Amino acid sequence: MTESHHPNLPITRDGDIATVTFNRPEARNAFNLSMWQGLADTMAALSADDTLRCVILRGSGPESFSAGADIKGFETERGTAASEAIYARVFHDGMQSVRLCQHPVVAAIEGVCMGGGAGIATMCDFRVGDIGIRMGITACKLSLWYPYAEIAPVIALVGSAVVTEMLIEGRIFNGREAYEKGLLSRLAADGKVQEEALALAGRIAEGAPLAARFHKAAIRRLGEGGPITEAEELASSGFALTEDFQGAVQAFKARRKPVWHGR
Amino acid sequence: MTESHHPNLPITRDGDIATVTFNRPEARNAFNLSMWQGLADTMAALSADDTLRCVILRGSGPESFSAGADIKGFETERGTAASEAIYARVFHDGMQSVRLCQHPVVAAIEGVCMGGGAGIATMCDFRVGDIGIRMGITACKLSLWYPYAEIAPVIALVGSAVVTEMLIEGRIFNGREAYEKGLLSRLAADGKVQEEALALAGRIAEGAPLAARFHKAAIRRLGEGGPITEAEELASSGFALTEDFQGAVQAFKARRKPVWHGR
Amino acid sequence: MTESHHPNLPITRDGDIATVTFNRPEARNAFNLSMWQGLADTMAALSADDTLRCVILRGSGPESFSAGADIKGFETERGTAASEAIYARVFHDGMQSVRLCQHPVVAAIEGVCMGGGAGIATMCDFRVGDIGIRMGITACKLSLWYPYAEIAPVIALVGSAVVTEMLIEGRIFNGREAYEKGLLSRLAADGKVQEEALALAGRIAEGAPLAARFHKAAIRRLGEGGPITEAEELASSGFALTEDFQGAVQAFKARRKPVWHGR
Repeated sequence: MTESHHPNLPITRDGDIATVTFNRPEARNAFNLSMWQGLADTMAALSADDTLRCVILRGSGPESFSAGADIKGFETERGTAASEAIYARVFHDGMQSVRLCQHPVVAAIEGVCMGGGAGIATMCDFRVGDIGIRMGITACKLSLWYPYAEIAPVIALVGSAVVTEMLIEGRIFNGREAYEKGLLSRLAADGKVQEEALALAGRIAEGAPLAARFHKAAIRRLGEGGPITEAEELASSGFALTEDFQGAVQAFKARRKPVWHGR
Repeated sequence: MTESHHPNLPITRDGDIATVTFNRPEARNAFNLSMWQGLADTMAALSADDTLRCVILRGSGPESFSAGADIKGFETERGTAASEAIYARVFHDGMQSVRLCQHPVVAAIEGVCMGGGAGIATMCDFRVGDIGIRMGITACKLSLWYPYAEIAPVIALVGSAVVTEMLIEGRIFNGREAYEKGLLSRLAADGKVQEEALALAGRIAEGAPLAARFHKAAIRRLGEGGPITEAEELASSGFALTEDFQGAVQAFKARRKPVWHGR
Repeated sequence: MTESHHPNLPITRDGDIATVTFNRPEARNAFNLSMWQGLADTMAALSADDTLRCVILRGSGPESFSAGADIKGFETERGTAASEAIYARVFHDGMQSVRLCQHPVVAAIEGVCMGGGAGIATMCDFRVGDIGIRMGITACKLSLWYPYAEIAPVIALVGSAVVTEMLIEGRIFNGREAYEKGLLSRLAADGKVQEEALALAGRIAEGAPLAARFHKAAIRRLGEGGPITEAEELASSGFALTEDFQGAVQAFKARRKPVWHGR
């Protein structure tokens, strides 16, 4: 058991794969202010650990991935200019910590995946769910405005028309719809979400770690727009001098499986 | 009956939902110069009406949504540098007025939806059609160049490859293909397009109006690219102090349905 | 037979359609440094030929479109800072020459379409394949970093989530999956890829050539981001004064088929 950074966000580790569990079942794993901060702290710590290859995010049971932001806490946590400024920043830090984690992150989604819970899922690199999930961002039912920085990755996933259905019509998708719309990268058989997510994490962990980190960062960078600088282009050729690439070319020639050293 | 702004573009109103009908059946509802201007005037007026929640655009009968720009009028309306400068501006104003309308806009598509007619549909926030529609932008058959500002929203909807099929191969999609490609947000049962569009407009109208307006503008803003400024970020937290949000949090707690005041 | 620019990249011509064949069957049509340069030279020459309407890229047999970059050559062609700088530039020139070709380009994909071979396909305007193809960019298995300029067009095709599956999980798609994900524009019946690609090229060649060139360039331009300038907007109205447009309006009126002169 790895040291955790928040009581509702325990971390477990199996080889080079870490799993963070959203564990607040009495509130369908809804996030309050302290948990958003905890998510930011957790992901920052996992990102800094170069021995990891993949992170899985999941809910504490088959009923809920997460119901999103905890509305019951809004009365004390939000609603004034001062409290909202804090909430918006901490929510943002929690969300972006998933995107900014250097390792690939897999969302293993079962049951309720709503609002900020769906938001966390859209920040992940991969999303696995079964048909029984309920996935939506129904901000329109609370007159809440979903922030720019968290809308942008959803547009990148599913395009502007599906985001419009989610945010303006308030649509909630089951697993098949979510897969067809591109919200899920993989549709698992009923009840096999955790198993599929682990197998996926295993395949990711088998790939070259430096390539996974570069590609995650490069896809995020391209999503942010603006021309790629000459320095960035040059850095992107850096792999050619790494031990991992040179070893892989040798291994290919010798018909051996390459071994990754992360350098 | 609401005052209309062009004889071929009558407006009807049912509660907080307005419907604009493209009514020129003898030309399959094709748009001439005066109708593009009329569309701009109509959408500007509807956008300015804060009592509205949703706008539906439809054709005058089940045969045609719109055949697009009226080619028969091109001889007098286009073809010189001077006339083209006017046509391009008015066409652009008409198209963009749909995108810029503060309220969500639903295209209820039956039958022919070609060229500029398909263009109008891609400017809407939602597109409902049945399998019998014919949707395409076959500019390649007339050596006409579809403008940048109108291509961009189609890319946002369906990606560059499908736009390429439409503009360069000249593909015309039926309703199922259009749905699978992402051109339609909803595939209605045969002959049930108007019914489905009304039901959709009803669901949109039930949501919080300030959230619908913010999300429509935010999705458009993100589509335009460029970094979100600090002022824009700050403004996006503005909901927290609105009566509608604070009332909705209270209503959630009391298990009541929220009532929207638009402030 | 048209003059070719590289022994492994013969060009054939049938009317206004040119076909480039990747012809190195002993290496599953894998590209070495000299072939990347040959591809750049070939596409530049075809692009400059205003009598062409469409280019088809294909493999030399039904087994392989292309296996991508030839890993066996990496030991001599890559692996030092100096050699990598050359390789990266030539690879980039070859890839971008397909995107920059003024004529629409169709990839006719059979069999293996991996790595840089899939990369070439994603640079094309259209991709036709049958269910038996194997399409992927498994850079993660070699610790190779796929370059920014070549990732961006794949994101434009299939979105960031599918690119993530390709680059980080190392997924390889068959034809049906590739079609559903948006990697293929058209799924041909088994063994009918070349026939379908030719028919598609024929439809493209029937359309107005100036419109095809403008739309290809415009879609690429919009993908690059940044605001469209006034000069670009103005140029996009240029069609109105062309002989082809004015003739097409006359032909429409007279119910004749238009004839294109490319001016």
